Amino acid sequence: MARSDGRQDDELREISIRRGFQQHPAGSVLVSFGQTTVLCAASVTEGVPRWRQGSGLGWLTAEYAMLPSATHSRSDRESVKGRVGGRTHEISRLVGRSLRAAIDLRALGENTIQLDCDVLQADGGTRTAAITGAYVALADAVTWLRAHKRLADPQPLSCSIAAVSVGVVDGRVRLDLPYEEDSRAEVDMNVVATDTGTLVEVQGTGEGATYTRATLDAMLDSALAGCARLTELQVAALAEPYPGELP
Amino acid sequence: MARSDGRQDDELREISIRRGFQQHPAGSVLVSFGQTTVLCAASVTEGVPRWRQGSGLGWLTAEYAMLPSATHSRSDRESVKGRVGGRTHEISRLVGRSLRAAIDLRALGENTIQLDCDVLQADGGTRTAAITGAYVALADAVTWLRAHKRLADPQPLSCSIAAVSVGVVDGRVRLDLPYEEDSRAEVDMNVVATDTGTLVEVQGTGEGATYTRATLDAMLDSALAGCARLTELQVAALAEPYPGELP
Amino acid sequence: MARSDGRQDDELREISIRRGFQQHPAGSVLVSFGQTTVLCAASVTEGVPRWRQGSGLGWLTAEYAMLPSATHSRSDRESVKGRVGGRTHEISRLVGRSLRAAIDLRALGENTIQLDCDVLQADGGTRTAAITGAYVALADAVTWLRAHKRLADPQPLSCSIAAVSVGVVDGRVRLDLPYEEDSRAEVDMNVVATDTGTLVEVQGTGEGATYTRATLDAMLDSALAGCARLTELQVAALAEPYPGELP
Amino acid sequence: MARSDGRQDDELREISIRRGFQQHPAGSVLVSFGQTTVLCAASVTEGVPRWRQGSGLGWLTAEYAMLPSATHSRSDRESVKGRVGGRTHEISRLVGRSLRAAIDLRALGENTIQLDCDVLQADGGTRTAAITGAYVALADAVTWLRAHKRLADPQPLSCSIAAVSVGVVDGRVRLDLPYEEDSRAEVDMNVVATDTGTLVEVQGTGEGATYTRATLDAMLDSALAGCARLTELQVAALAEPYPGELP
Amino acid sequence: MARSDGRQDDELREISIRRGFQQHPAGSVLVSFGQTTVLCAASVTEGVPRWRQGSGLGWLTAEYAMLPSATHSRSDRESVKGRVGGRTHEISRLVGRSLRAAIDLRALGENTIQLDCDVLQADGGTRTAAITGAYVALADAVTWLRAHKRLADPQPLSCSIAAVSVGVVDGRVRLDLPYEEDSRAEVDMNVVATDTGTLVEVQGTGEGATYTRATLDAMLDSALAGCARLTELQVAALAEPYPGELP
Amino acid sequence: MARSDGRQDDELREISIRRGFQQHPAGSVLVSFGQTTVLCAASVTEGVPRWRQGSGLGWLTAEYAMLPSATHSRSDRESVKGRVGGRTHEISRLVGRSLRAAIDLRALGENTIQLDCDVLQADGGTRTAAITGAYVALADAVTWLRAHKRLADPQPLSCSIAAVSVGVVDGRVRLDLPYEEDSRAEVDMNVVATDTGTLVEVQGTGEGATYTRATLDAMLDSALAGCARLTELQVAALAEPYPGELP
Repeated sequence: MARSDGRQDDELREISIRRGFQQHPAGSVLVSFGQTTVLCAASVTEGVPRWRQGSGLGWLTAEYAMLPSATHSRSDRESVKGRVGGRTHEISRLVGRSLRAAIDLRALGENTIQLDCDVLQADGGTRTAAITGAYVALADAVTWLRAHKRLADPQPLSCSIAAVSVGVVDGRVRLDLPYEEDSRAEVDMNVVATDTGTLVEVQGTGEGATYTRATLDAMLDSALAGCARLTELQVAALAEPYPGELP
Repeated sequence: MARSDGRQDDELREISIRRGFQQHPAGSVLVSFGQTTVLCAASVTEGVPRWRQGSGLGWLTAEYAMLPSATHSRSDRESVKGRVGGRTHEISRLVGRSLRAAIDLRALGENTIQLDCDVLQADGGTRTAAITGAYVALADAVTWLRAHKRLADPQPLSCSIAAVSVGVVDGRVRLDLPYEEDSRAEVDMNVVATDTGTLVEVQGTGEGATYTRATLDAMLDSALAGCARLTELQVAALAEPYPGELP
Repeated sequence: MARSDGRQDDELREISIRRGFQQHPAGSVLVSFGQTTVLCAASVTEGVPRWRQGSGLGWLTAEYAMLPSATHSRSDRESVKGRVGGRTHEISRLVGRSLRAAIDLRALGENTIQLDCDVLQADGGTRTAAITGAYVALADAVTWLRAHKRLADPQPLSCSIAAVSVGVVDGRVRLDLPYEEDSRAEVDMNVVATDTGTLVEVQGTGEGATYTRATLDAMLDSALAGCARLTELQVAALAEPYPGELP
Repeated sequence: MARSDGRQDDELREISIRRGFQQHPAGSVLVSFGQTTVLCAASVTEGVPRWRQGSGLGWLTAEYAMLPSATHSRSDRESVKGRVGGRTHEISRLVGRSLRAAIDLRALGENTIQLDCDVLQADGGTRTAAITGAYVALADAVTWLRAHKRLADPQPLSCSIAAVSVGVVDGRVRLDLPYEEDSRAEVDMNVVATDTGTLVEVQGTGEGATYTRATLDAMLDSALAGCARLTELQVAALAEPYPGELP
Repeated sequence: MARSDGRQDDELREISIRRGFQQHPAGSVLVSFGQTTVLCAASVTEGVPRWRQGSGLGWLTAEYAMLPSATHSRSDRESVKGRVGGRTHEISRLVGRSLRAAIDLRALGENTIQLDCDVLQADGGTRTAAITGAYVALADAVTWLRAHKRLADPQPLSCSIAAVSVGVVDGRVRLDLPYEEDSRAEVDMNVVATDTGTLVEVQGTGEGATYTRATLDAMLDSALAGCARLTELQVAALAEPYPGELP
Repeated sequence: MARSDGRQDDELREISIRRGFQQHPAGSVLVSFGQTTVLCAASVTEGVPRWRQGSGLGWLTAEYAMLPSATHSRSDRESVKGRVGGRTHEISRLVGRSLRAAIDLRALGENTIQLDCDVLQADGGTRTAAITGAYVALADAVTWLRAHKRLADPQPLSCSIAAVSVGVVDGRVRLDLPYEEDSRAEVDMNVVATDTGTLVEVQGTGEGATYTRATLDAMLDSALAGCARLTELQVAALAEPYPGELP
């Protein structure tokens, strides 16, 4: 049974990574996985939160959010509801944890990097696109800090980070699910990995179904291959000179 | 004394109006006034809020917000603070009121149009860019409603709406202030006008200064000329065929 | 077509300004514009907010609110709803901005003046009554500060401030609208002016209608005459000796 | 040891009960116990909350609040803090419970009476002044309902309600404590009683001290005598014709 | 008319006081009054709130809450509702006030004791069970502080505290009401007393009824006898050696 | 290197499962994994949330929370902070999702089961203890529904659910981590599995470290063996007759 967008089961959607989308943050990346589009900004602040002052360690944190107009039916604005929902909290924590795996906070020095991942358009896989884009924004923010001689050590990044979703749809293990597949997947897994293929985070969930360990293994094979391909695209994007301004 | 960006006192910044930026809303416009960039989406819902049901009238409302990464120094997210700030409320109300001046709610029928204006990058004049872009998104949403035969009357738009800021900077009346001018303006005025030059909203504020009625008149002259130019650009943008998808 | 209360189009309602209504604040004024009654208190605190400390500048801020029992149908209490509404925020900001135009914050020294405008009874024009009364409370608070030798300079007030509403009702420009006129006005404008007739704030809104520049001019004429009359009444009220206590 | 205001230990402060202070609510009373001033409004709504619909019973509820400017040092606004404090909640519940003791909710019919007690000036005993004033506002609201033929039975009030504070100060049992005494009282008691001398509510609290049962008895003697005197003043106030409007 | 559980009118339910229920707090008591079960923990923190620093005085505060599953029908979680209800606030304040009557805050030194009373199962009288259990947890926390030589004076407890409910049910004065009696009581009173029989707090409420002073006296007689019996049970519980861990 | 509590690397802590801890919920289980103690209640409500009415499907949801006194240092109460934290949200969602994997919502009929997992004492692994205990409470609630003939189909449970944590500590894969190990684990994984050994949820996180796929495999081996042992203990607990009341 073919995928509705004609892809192979182990094929990523079309990926676009556009750096320098905004002027103000030290890193700003517009990343697309097919129709899913996320604006990832890395803002740098001198100093760290109070509980960490004087430790010599930096800090990195993340916030994920979705524009009301990003989803098929408009979703209510969390600022207007007056509270951040459970799903938003959960993804914000995942993004922050994943990116902290790439950075040596001692080498960062007492600086804070705030990653903001705002989904401009949602079509499945927003959290994995956010992590993949946020790594590129983080790399640009580190370059900026190095150029401004504000790092305690010039190489705080120990690895690169990419993430992709994988799931079981129509009884088949498929990579990088769009909304149409995600919404009816029997199993859904998000994998965050480094450029050397080690794992940062594995979250696999049966949706009204359970799955065998053999399925888990097949999903991991597919996801790790996907992350390796995303790593290549990140490297290629970062090899370009930094674009200055909004076109 | 020349303006820092080389413009004439009565000259607009470079204006860009890009339709169809998002797939899901019925209208979606990325508007730029120089470095200020606002994503304006018009989402259509069948039906109206409870207090209006059975009236035969439609409803139009607006929400304005800023991405944390849009400003020079990152600003805190209102969803995380758990409350919408005074400035945000005030601008949301202004945008909704301004656009309601253009639409005959009886002709709209019992449909709701929600305008979301999310500032992706801020460099002064975000509220006037939001109104100007929101009108174009609204026009596309009305076209969509007409195509789906959901209007009570096929021509609910009675006029078009554009807005621009004007102020007194360095003792001179200047049009379309960027942040660098806005932050030190002695007087700051926002004018919302129709394509026939009538007024929808005038808000003029002395910032630690007061102003004479002659200054008010000079500011209105400049702003109305600016709105006329913006109207031409809206007409030109709407004359293009609707682009289907994110590039 | 005559006004329902028999006034001329350019006539204010009966204005009452009663000083010393409360004991605790440095200034406390009960102001009435016809049936609209607002309690305006000016509380003085030594010191300024953290972000302003050490600047040598004082601070002035305002909060506007309405008692639930002030309106024709009881309105819900914002403290119980857990959030301050958009209209309340907007008016609070307007009152603060308007009064700051009258005071030299350097002359004030590092003191904070908090203006609280609580509407006891609402019949249209509550924000303009609030500004007009708040100026008198502010003047009394400045006198109190001077008497206690806490000012950096003895004359921090550079002008006096008054405000009035004006609108187009039944096709005619009318001054100081009560609720009955305000609720059906085609255009509604609030004007804040100084005792020399310069402008502090102009906010003119078409309510489901737009207006010509000629109408704007006629409304300004009427409002500035109204403000001049209010200034006389403020001067007269402040010429009386300060009453000590609640009767 | 004499009281600072020269009163006898068992003497009330000067009491003032002014009806018809506001136009909109069915009952509106400005009550003063010395310098403590509370505006008590009784607003009538047709119908009852959802959980009570169809029961044939009415509902009465109360909200107590304090203006920021009512206290010696300005207190923060609960709407701005975004939550109602514990003390406010507690007093609101006390006022509602006390007044419900006076009314037969079946006789009231499916109407809701909302009592709002807003403290304009605080000098001790605000909750007891609120209850005493609220009863008068309630009586006027019942008269209004009777005149509009909206009662299920013409006499829903089974008794009248008054309240007073009593405490141990300087080792002596004293009635109706002003702030100066209240803040240093060893024991503080609030008593709510009916016109026949039966009890509705007794709340006695040792403040960093405990008290004997003999002291409790002496406090009750004093408070019940005080309530009897307040009942006379309520009767006298209600014997006057209803004043129409704000003076 | 007999009580549904067969008790005499002046008889307590079966009381259980189990110390050391949790490991982490300095005192932790599981108290039961019949089917009502409350977990009372006394947590010690070095230092006092900012407003009290440098005073040499300690601080004691309390929070009361109910598990959603504690009540007959599940009740919503206050953390999810985003606000603490009026009843919860009121009881938290009562518990804190009652326990502060037992402790000399100067002898406590600049330490804070936080009492948490979480109702695991509710069957009437949760607040009085909470106070009675909290005293035992407080006594254990004081012992812990003494052992760690952190008290300014070794005997900060000046008395012991117990509390019980009493009410008029079926026309009879009854002690320690379970939910079945509490929900239909005509009068409901909570009494907090010391081991010497002096009063800390008396709160008597007519529920849709009023009560005579003779009834008040009878209720006090019953409640004080109940408190004396609870004091004996507290003394017996505290005479046991401290159990180390959860069984 | 031995574990501080003397266990083997693949050994569970002492597990206790006590049914019928509370009277009111249809299922109520006090579960302990060593010193970690969680009260799991399953409350049944007739009907389903509005968005599900008429579907013929039931609903199951969960809320996780921690008593302030459960942790080593007292933690602030989320109801008092006015918002549920990210970690709480995330675990609540995990518990609900995990238990929904065990139940056929069509067989449940239009009933709602609310699982409340309140941590009374925390020593690592609270979420896995919560899931393991919640399954037993759920089984008792289903028995109750069956006895009351409220199920659409008598066997809605398709499998049983257990969960355990596993991690890499001191370079070794260890099962069921207490706080002392959890706080310094390099990798932390939670596994939710069924009685047939299929997977419901796998969440593996590198904490400032990444992990190889071989480590993932070793952790899964250990966790699945642990879940199998927990399943046996659940079966044994459920084989006992239901205890009626709190002892």
